[in-house]
Amino acid sequence: MKATAKAHTNIALIKYWGKRDEKLILPTNNSLSLTLDGFYTKTTVEFREDLTEDIFYLNDKLVSDQQFNRVTAFLDLIRDYAQKNTLFAEVRSINEVPTAAGFASSASGFAALAAAATRALQLNITDQELSRLTRQGSGSACRSIYGGFAEWEKGTQQDGSDSFAVPVAPKDHWDIRVAAVVLSAKMKKVSSREGMRRTVETSPFFSSWVDSIPNDLTEIKQGIKDRDFEKVGRIAEANCLKMHATTLGANPPFTYWHDTTLAVMQTVQKLRDNGIPAYFTIDAGPNVKVLYLPENEEKLQQTLREIPGVTDVILSRSGQGVTYL
Amino acid sequence: MKATAKAHTNIALIKYWGKRDEKLILPTNNSLSLTLDGFYTKTTVEFREDLTEDIFYLNDKLVSDQQFNRVTAFLDLIRDYAQKNTLFAEVRSINEVPTAAGFASSASGFAALAAAATRALQLNITDQELSRLTRQGSGSACRSIYGGFAEWEKGTQQDGSDSFAVPVAPKDHWDIRVAAVVLSAKMKKVSSREGMRRTVETSPFFSSWVDSIPNDLTEIKQGIKDRDFEKVGRIAEANCLKMHATTLGANPPFTYWHDTTLAVMQTVQKLRDNGIPAYFTIDAGPNVKVLYLPENEEKLQQTLREIPGVTDVILSRSGQGVTYL
Repeated sequence: MKATAKAHTNIALIKYWGKRDEKLILPTNNSLSLTLDGFYTKTTVEFREDLTEDIFYLNDKLVSDQQFNRVTAFLDLIRDYAQKNTLFAEVRSINEVPTAAGFASSASGFAALAAAATRALQLNITDQELSRLTRQGSGSACRSIYGGFAEWEKGTQQDGSDSFAVPVAPKDHWDIRVAAVVLSAKMKKVSSREGMRRTVETSPFFSSWVDSIPNDLTEIKQGIKDRDFEKVGRIAEANCLKMHATTLGANPPFTYWHDTTLAVMQTVQKLRDNGIPAYFTIDAGPNVKVLYLPENEEKLQQTLREIPGVTDVILSRSGQGVTYL
Repeated sequence: MKATAKAHTNIALIKYWGKRDEKLILPTNNSLSLTLDGFYTKTTVEFREDLTEDIFYLNDKLVSDQQFNRVTAFLDLIRDYAQKNTLFAEVRSINEVPTAAGFASSASGFAALAAAATRALQLNITDQELSRLTRQGSGSACRSIYGGFAEWEKGTQQDGSDSFAVPVAPKDHWDIRVAAVVLSAKMKKVSSREGMRRTVETSPFFSSWVDSIPNDLTEIKQGIKDRDFEKVGRIAEANCLKMHATTLGANPPFTYWHDTTLAVMQTVQKLRDNGIPAYFTIDAGPNVKVLYLPENEEKLQQTLREIPGVTDVILSRSGQGVTYL
């Protein structure tokens, strides 16, 4: 009853922003992401008859705080699913997602955990079923089951049974790349959970954001199919700006942007003015991710590194979905 | 047939953002402003029988370009109103509104022009009528007829007959102050005219912006009445953020913010965290205006001047309405 799985993080091009059910982690809109090869979590789960509670090691350190609680609560879901409620596990995770890069390590973390735990229990489940389970650990993690581009279908059922990710295009469909621009400056952060909640409850722009998603999705999926970089980039950038616009209307208003965030955004737009296609996207934090094509890697990296306040630029390609080791 | 008038610029606390009629300059929402003593235009208009066309001197230089066209088109309106269509004028304006401060010199400019021209023609009109005429030269100028706080009522008539500003509280009601923070960085600018148009036509957030105005107005007017600085500042800042949110949803999206704009916004929020009440507002450009109280002037000015990228901080008090010299 032991298995090891590896999962990569993903970057949303159409953002997940707003929950319709906080407990089941059901979103208000579909989202679409690219799985990245640079950042992953490798997790071994062993269910053992001799354990009376779960044990969780992260990067070889025993964890007993809130992170442990999230892991054990998620294992409860898996135990329920497998009808093995009295079986506890030792979980060992190695996290290769630098927190500073502003990637949610919870995406690769819960995808790897779900995959390893279900495999350890020899559950024979589909990717969709795995994605549905993973979603309940961390929403955006449900997209990391697949390589390349994946779409999280929000679903309409109250119990979340139709809310899971599906593949859009595999890893090798298109060599599109992402530069994670790491900023030195730290700011008082509104967590994405709190940010979503406040926006859903108070922003006059929230319903327009939700209404604008289906068209963005139709267009970006056509762009991905056609490998139309300008189209994919333009829609991803505009979608990110709309998401961040909703936070400015919240009560009290807030923004995840820092001054250097703006500087990176302006630099990317200047690169485009100079004929180098590049587009930015930003999640619930100050860091910026830049979409680019392989032929512009050198110039792009050099330009981004020269921005004052940028401490690192980490390059990544399209990554694979969950694998078992 | 000669008169001289002086008018001050104003800063909107509830923004004018969106036209329902571009030709008549009719807005989609009411706006509210504070007239500032620091920045003004002084204009002399002389109607002369010997002229066959208008002449316009700005800061002692003869103007013949687009600025001249706007002035002569506005004088046409005044001539129509006075039924003196064959009478031309020499206009001499001195502009004490530093363009770099990001104040619209058109506000004080058209208010002074309207006042001087109507007075030169010995038209006996009310402030409301003067405001209504002024509006057709430059929308926000219609608020500069009054000192202190003024509200531009959008009106509902197609011909604009009920679209003019009214006084809310006179200059001496409250010693509230504004620091204009001037940034060194220049950016490719979307004009406010083009920005409004694109936002009205394409932003999914525009109708929510308009719908949110009446409540902001009710609250801020109560705050002004009560001299409640926290309330006035909070609503003004949130209103500005909503206005700027609408541009992020436009197609193509745009923002007036620069990296230093964000740095100033963050500094103002940090001042508040440190117990110094101050609130920002931003118009269709990168510069920031900060609302503050007299007792915090020194600390505020010093803090703002220390922000890298800030070249000047210009302080201003509540100003008076149109005066005749």
